[in-house]
Amino acid sequence: MISRDRLIEDFPILNDITYLDSASTSLTPRPVVDAMNDYYLNYNSNTGRGSYKIAIKSTNKVEQTREKIAKLLNTASQEIIFTKNTTEAINLIANGLNFNTEDNIIISNIEHHSNFIPWVNKSIDIRIAKAKNYVVEPDSISDLINKNTKLIAISHITNAFGSIQDIEEIIKIAHEMDVLVLVDSAQSAGHTEIDIKKLNPDFMAFPGHKGLLGPTGTGFLYLKEELSEEIKPSNLGGGTVTSVNGINFKLEEPPSRFEGGTLNIGGIIGLNAGIDYLLNFGIPKIENHINNLTKMLYKGLQANGNVTIYGNPNNIHGIVSFNINGLNPYDVGKILDETDDICLRSGFHCAIPGLKSVGANEGTVRGSFHVYNTKEDVEKLIYSIEELSQFT
Amino acid sequence: MISRDRLIEDFPILNDITYLDSASTSLTPRPVVDAMNDYYLNYNSNTGRGSYKIAIKSTNKVEQTREKIAKLLNTASQEIIFTKNTTEAINLIANGLNFNTEDNIIISNIEHHSNFIPWVNKSIDIRIAKAKNYVVEPDSISDLINKNTKLIAISHITNAFGSIQDIEEIIKIAHEMDVLVLVDSAQSAGHTEIDIKKLNPDFMAFPGHKGLLGPTGTGFLYLKEELSEEIKPSNLGGGTVTSVNGINFKLEEPPSRFEGGTLNIGGIIGLNAGIDYLLNFGIPKIENHINNLTKMLYKGLQANGNVTIYGNPNNIHGIVSFNINGLNPYDVGKILDETDDICLRSGFHCAIPGLKSVGANEGTVRGSFHVYNTKEDVEKLIYSIEELSQFT
Repeated sequence: MISRDRLIEDFPILNDITYLDSASTSLTPRPVVDAMNDYYLNYNSNTGRGSYKIAIKSTNKVEQTREKIAKLLNTASQEIIFTKNTTEAINLIANGLNFNTEDNIIISNIEHHSNFIPWVNKSIDIRIAKAKNYVVEPDSISDLINKNTKLIAISHITNAFGSIQDIEEIIKIAHEMDVLVLVDSAQSAGHTEIDIKKLNPDFMAFPGHKGLLGPTGTGFLYLKEELSEEIKPSNLGGGTVTSVNGINFKLEEPPSRFEGGTLNIGGIIGLNAGIDYLLNFGIPKIENHINNLTKMLYKGLQANGNVTIYGNPNNIHGIVSFNINGLNPYDVGKILDETDDICLRSGFHCAIPGLKSVGANEGTVRGSFHVYNTKEDVEKLIYSIEELSQFT
Repeated sequence: MISRDRLIEDFPILNDITYLDSASTSLTPRPVVDAMNDYYLNYNSNTGRGSYKIAIKSTNKVEQTREKIAKLLNTASQEIIFTKNTTEAINLIANGLNFNTEDNIIISNIEHHSNFIPWVNKSIDIRIAKAKNYVVEPDSISDLINKNTKLIAISHITNAFGSIQDIEEIIKIAHEMDVLVLVDSAQSAGHTEIDIKKLNPDFMAFPGHKGLLGPTGTGFLYLKEELSEEIKPSNLGGGTVTSVNGINFKLEEPPSRFEGGTLNIGGIIGLNAGIDYLLNFGIPKIENHINNLTKMLYKGLQANGNVTIYGNPNNIHGIVSFNINGLNPYDVGKILDETDDICLRSGFHCAIPGLKSVGANEGTVRGSFHVYNTKEDVEKLIYSIEELSQFT
């Protein structure tokens, strides 16, 4: 996908390690770092009402990033709200949408905690769709919908198993019943093309620092324009109001009313460069590359009789969750790092209900991929797992 | 304060401009940029449960930053919660503290919108203390306290006028009446020594990207340990829970329960280096330097018969707000930038009630300082204002 020289130039850390934890946070390409450096050293300034040239430049860069995201997702820039991470984007809706006591919410049992805890924390009826073979069947959702269902919150690709949910069908079913849908895109943005006009979600939460190759501290929310008045802003302050009279105030139009205080300007400018980096290859090509690596790892581990894989080989993208039988996942991660400099995440991946549902009661080891991974990375991991599993 | 060579090495932007907008966001010293680059290029990884070396290093760096902040403020590290900015820190309390319908809140009429709108947005009695000569007298606060007063929210140094509030006395009065106090430290952190044990606030909101010289996207909240159970977390998700059983969950101890999702790891590591940069000089020395520049600007503008200054010469730090009589502040900012490359903020500084209260109905021009400013910067501004005011 990328030549070895270019890989090391753009991701020098790959000289020393095999990085297989992109589902947690992606490596940051050098052009992203360069874009942030340019901001911090050459036009460092706040956005908004500054009348001087560098402040206007910062403001324009942030708004250009918003437009770039909107174009990438086939939507309008005023529907993109910058947040610090995916979790904040989900909570913005969980805290801002009005729920009545008789309302219910449908979630699945294989969500990340960030798309689980904000909902179960509400004192209303929570209905949980149970995944089968790592996938939430649209039918299992429609069975749970009743006249009091207000919202379905579902991940596009699950962070614990890499399974792809049929969100297009789920959204269709939901809208037929006048139910809103929030999609958690933490593992899908940058990995597969997302067309908001076509999918038609009501809310969609995105990380900047995962698939889109931006820096930490970045994320955003897609908020459908016609619903924006229904969401009560929960981070009020500088930049969110147009006027104040006594104790009365008038909110800015969206997205500003949701973006109180100084934005992560350097981070957003980095995210802009991250999206450019992706688009140099094109998302379909990256998707195909990651799919090939995912399947190669799945097959390689499947051939090892001492390994249990938690995932559906016919429906998996970017993530392979597994255990070496008889070994604690944390120990496996630690040993592979110490002996072979392989970086994998071990544990519950902030998805305790999902891991418990498949009997992974001590968690799993998780390998995950992005554009900078290679077949050699996968071969190395399969070989290291084979070596290690001989000791069990 | 800093040699010209060192200034240009650490802040290359100063080759081209005179930066007088640190109250909005500070310039970022090169060592801060270097620390972020080191993270992004050499140990890029998520914090938390990673078992591999670079993830452990990232986690340690974030926790070291928390400890450094706690030491700087003379408090305990578990009382420091990372946020994306000061505004989020204030909203965390505004959204998380339980208010009864009969409760009231006291704020002043010279607060930043971020310490005004989150409170007036609540459907309870809001009592507004009116500043005299840009200062909120502690007596004017005690006159407003009654048995239903739950909280006083007040800035340490006002962002519109640079006036220093006697928060020690206000906190003392409040605590005698069992009233909680939130202090907005947006303009004081890094400018003056803050001893939390001595001041004894209940909540204190801080920016990372202003006085502490960190990057954008950083801030934090001091939350008194004995009050942490009274604050309902409003950004739930990954990292905030220790266990999940069905729809029940157990929260992590503070500060983790308040820090849902991936932190701005690169930003926090940059903030760590920003605090080191400050401590190389020592905060008392920086405070003295900024005080001298502030008074020099005040006097220089006072000598100009065509200028109105909004500020109290006997109680001012780091910020001078003014207008050239007959000129719109926005035009003044624009002209000074275009003709002399001077960066000043113009407008209402997100403090509409305060500016209206002093008759600055079109806003003001605001100059503000940090460690990298020099007497030459002030002389240049005074001279430019003189030149410009001759045209009125």
